[in-house]
Amino acid sequence: MKALKWHGARDLRLEIIARRPLKAGEIRIEVAYCGICGSDMHEYLHGPDSIPVKAPHPLSNSVAPIVIGHEFCGTVVETAADVTGLQLGDRVAVEPEYRCGHCTYCREGRYNLCESMGFVGLMGDGGMAEEAVVPAYMAHVLPRSLSFRQAAVAEPAAVALHGVRQSALRPGDDCVIFGMGAIGLLLVMMARHHGAGRIIAVDVDPRRLQLAREVGASDTVDASLGDAVQQVRELTGGVGVPVAFEAVGRPETLKGALGVLSKGGEAVLLGLMPEASIDTFDLVNRELRITSSVGYRGLYPELLELMASGAVDAERIVTHTVSLEAAIQNGFERLASAGDAIKVLVQPQQEACA
Amino acid sequence: MKALKWHGARDLRLEIIARRPLKAGEIRIEVAYCGICGSDMHEYLHGPDSIPVKAPHPLSNSVAPIVIGHEFCGTVVETAADVTGLQLGDRVAVEPEYRCGHCTYCREGRYNLCESMGFVGLMGDGGMAEEAVVPAYMAHVLPRSLSFRQAAVAEPAAVALHGVRQSALRPGDDCVIFGMGAIGLLLVMMARHHGAGRIIAVDVDPRRLQLAREVGASDTVDASLGDAVQQVRELTGGVGVPVAFEAVGRPETLKGALGVLSKGGEAVLLGLMPEASIDTFDLVNRELRITSSVGYRGLYPELLELMASGAVDAERIVTHTVSLEAAIQNGFERLASAGDAIKVLVQPQQEACA
Repeated sequence: MKALKWHGARDLRLEIIARRPLKAGEIRIEVAYCGICGSDMHEYLHGPDSIPVKAPHPLSNSVAPIVIGHEFCGTVVETAADVTGLQLGDRVAVEPEYRCGHCTYCREGRYNLCESMGFVGLMGDGGMAEEAVVPAYMAHVLPRSLSFRQAAVAEPAAVALHGVRQSALRPGDDCVIFGMGAIGLLLVMMARHHGAGRIIAVDVDPRRLQLAREVGASDTVDASLGDAVQQVRELTGGVGVPVAFEAVGRPETLKGALGVLSKGGEAVLLGLMPEASIDTFDLVNRELRITSSVGYRGLYPELLELMASGAVDAERIVTHTVSLEAAIQNGFERLASAGDAIKVLVQPQQEACA
Repeated sequence: MKALKWHGARDLRLEIIARRPLKAGEIRIEVAYCGICGSDMHEYLHGPDSIPVKAPHPLSNSVAPIVIGHEFCGTVVETAADVTGLQLGDRVAVEPEYRCGHCTYCREGRYNLCESMGFVGLMGDGGMAEEAVVPAYMAHVLPRSLSFRQAAVAEPAAVALHGVRQSALRPGDDCVIFGMGAIGLLLVMMARHHGAGRIIAVDVDPRRLQLAREVGASDTVDASLGDAVQQVRELTGGVGVPVAFEAVGRPETLKGALGVLSKGGEAVLLGLMPEASIDTFDLVNRELRITSSVGYRGLYPELLELMASGAVDAERIVTHTVSLEAAIQNGFERLASAGDAIKVLVQPQQEACA
């Protein structure tokens, strides 16, 4: 079968690989769609970032080269003898976090913090292939009315939903969201669904700000036109907002997220960034809080129902769909260079010409 | 009457000043005790820090020189005609936060975040005097069984209690507390009363660590003997703790407070410090949280009852009591130089020879 393998930075290869037999607890999925994530882009542009290249990951026993892709869904085509609760033909979304099941965090249900944390498609073979093998615990059967295209964005939607659940955002609260990439746009939708008051979207790309308005932002701030903090202050009568989300992953936007807060407010970090300098005096003096959010836990069933109900139209972030053959050129390269791509879905069953 | 006035750094003066008439809403208190706070020490050693020297503070209408001291209690000796709910002879503790009463924060009851935030004894004349004049809203009548010496430490105890209330500490949770000054020791007592599991106290002074054990710490770490984070990791089987309090106010101890956390943990900052560099990647990757705590709000009545019940013996932090005449030499200078002083109380009614 065809699979897209990461061998190194700027070295993705479309290969024909053998189907491996299932081990206990595993299922095989015919992949319908697999989205390209920001972390896939990191691996593509300047990896390895989290892909194991020296020693195998403890839970996947895998080491590079690996099949990339963790945002995927498809149809169950085989189950190991010991797997229960899943049938051949089940349409499933994959929750791609490995979990050891026995560390302190797993035992408490906080498996996104598992001591051996890893993702299918980064630490082990993932979904940019005609078929994928995953532990059965990762599979969530789709509600009947949820399409594969919707299910393909469940993973980034889970990141956004977990971010809102980690935050102190209450219905009626205003918020600011920095970065209108996939996660930022999904945060707009989740904050809107959660009953936020004003939702102020910040980006430097007018097209993304337009999309932000379409999916629920009440106000937009173009940071290329001037200081974003100042613009937010003007929009909020000088007061600021109780919650700001940082979905860019840069020290400057972290500073912005703290800057737009009213006293007692909370900056929620979803983006990964290196060392950052913080005005700790201002932090304590204004009694601010910095909350962070990584991955997700315990929310896939509710999320899939939420998406199936139409309350959150996560599919709106999809800008392009490409075949496996075109994934590098029209997917990874487009995301690296053009500003028009937000979420690119790879469709392994699509003919190469599409 | 005698009063200790701040004129500048290293320039406190004991003066004889006139009693001023009360304005509407004010009361006059004969001061029993007034503690010397860390922020008083900042003003003494290298102020002005928050003392207004150019323009008067908007709520106190005062400008330096001002009578220093905000940790005080005493007896009501006069009330303005419009004051209700207080009688001459009432024994009161002063909650020294000014509040404007009409900003967003005051209207929500979060008056520690008041737009015009300030403290009696820093932004207006305070308690290191034979008598003090304060707005009546600052006075809390003492429970009958609470002594003035206990009430004199209610203010730092309020800081510690607010810190614990700001935190996510739950009964049974282990915690680490950095800095066994007055606030750190009171945090030990509050965490113990709140039902914390292990309470690990960190300091560099064995005498303070001994006192920490006496007031409720289950373990102590002497940071002068080696890396505190490593020592805490060893004490906790490598796992770390869910909550750490920073009561020193230094970037190194903030780094330590983050370092001792288990995944998903929270560092609570009570100390004021300048710019600090944070390992943001680690913060997000381990889903940590930074919470801050400034002042207190809405807790004095409960706190005074808690202290009166004997559940929290806050008076244990008092190491010295001095007269107004001896306050500079035996109070401020002792705190600046000797390690044996933790909380020094100034007793304005005490004879100079005592």
